[in-house]
Amino acid sequence: MDSVRIIEIKESVFADNDREADRVRARLKEEKTFLLNLMSSPGSGKTTTLLRTIERLKDDLRIGVMEADIDSSVDAETIARTGVKSIQLHTGGMCHLDAGMTEQGLRELGTADVDLAVLENVGNLVCPAEFDTGAVKNAMILSVPEGHDKPLKYPLIFTVCDALIINKIDVLPYFDFDMDKVREYALRRNPRLEIFPISAKTGEGVGAWTSWLKKQVRDWTEE
Amino acid sequence: MDSVRIIEIKESVFADNDREADRVRARLKEEKTFLLNLMSSPGSGKTTTLLRTIERLKDDLRIGVMEADIDSSVDAETIARTGVKSIQLHTGGMCHLDAGMTEQGLRELGTADVDLAVLENVGNLVCPAEFDTGAVKNAMILSVPEGHDKPLKYPLIFTVCDALIINKIDVLPYFDFDMDKVREYALRRNPRLEIFPISAKTGEGVGAWTSWLKKQVRDWTEE
Repeated sequence: MDSVRIIEIKESVFADNDREADRVRARLKEEKTFLLNLMSSPGSGKTTTLLRTIERLKDDLRIGVMEADIDSSVDAETIARTGVKSIQLHTGGMCHLDAGMTEQGLRELGTADVDLAVLENVGNLVCPAEFDTGAVKNAMILSVPEGHDKPLKYPLIFTVCDALIINKIDVLPYFDFDMDKVREYALRRNPRLEIFPISAKTGEGVGAWTSWLKKQVRDWTEE
Repeated sequence: MDSVRIIEIKESVFADNDREADRVRARLKEEKTFLLNLMSSPGSGKTTTLLRTIERLKDDLRIGVMEADIDSSVDAETIARTGVKSIQLHTGGMCHLDAGMTEQGLRELGTADVDLAVLENVGNLVCPAEFDTGAVKNAMILSVPEGHDKPLKYPLIFTVCDALIINKIDVLPYFDFDMDKVREYALRRNPRLEIFPISAKTGEGVGAWTSWLKKQVRDWTEE
């Protein structure tokens, strides 16, 4: 098993999370590092999607990954095997990351040699959506088995995201998942949402997602 | 569409949630009402499992359902169509229910004519596990597409539950889900956990779950 650095992060001391998030973004801008905050339910395929994303982008961008988890390091070990810089953040039971916690992670990761930093947030559709982490863009994954009604039930996360990845489209034949409805419900929450149906397992659709992401990184770091 | 009563519940004023939870249980005992707290990720099939459970038990037990959700009433409308008493609790963005919130729900539902009350908690594997709602038993659903590693990543919820329902076993052939491993990981967290593999879609395995639940209700209400 690869050995992975595990960081125990603590709740932020900053009362004003939004101001702290803006400070994090300003520092990222200076260092020409793009931060993506990736959110989803447990089991929607965040780590597998990230593996596919790394495969496609690692020749063009220097990537660093922060895996936030409550109590394990399985994901960071998986990511470390791809060869990209990876650390595990332990939230100590916390259900989300705020900007101060993200900043601790970025400091441990080291961003000077990173173009694209990815924060894999805790598996949860509710709490992470409430906190600006300081990321440049927010993306979420909804997987086919979870159902197309999720934008109705967890509205906030669809509102705060820039991109929605719909994962596990390879199992569409086995589930009552209506792609038109999920688009309609999600866009009703957030008309500027970019939607990418993919299968992280087969690789289908991943190219459109990584092209979009690469463009966001370039726009941020070259501006 | 059926019209369903929607209750906006507020965060508890009680500082000591555990004491309040014990008070809720004592009152349920007096009224001979059993309360089941049902937890899971978004999209694991809580409502469908509940529909199947109601089908099997409604001739033997008087059932009442509280559907907790952040912002919709789709689930309560679905449950109401079965003919059992059902209300929708809106948590106002909160990611969990505590004992005080559950008590508000029970008061609105009315428990005098209910043997089995079910609280369908907010879809979230993290926060609901941290709060004793006052339920007599806690159950959780893990669905096959979520993966067998979840007891490693979300340990607390497996520790606080009495029963683990493993749903969507009809799609086992399409996922890399190891039933032996999930049992091993879950029992490592909690050796007294009862495990029920089911398909709420086809009905497979549901009988074992409902027999167990019925016995718990009888033990509580007839003791």
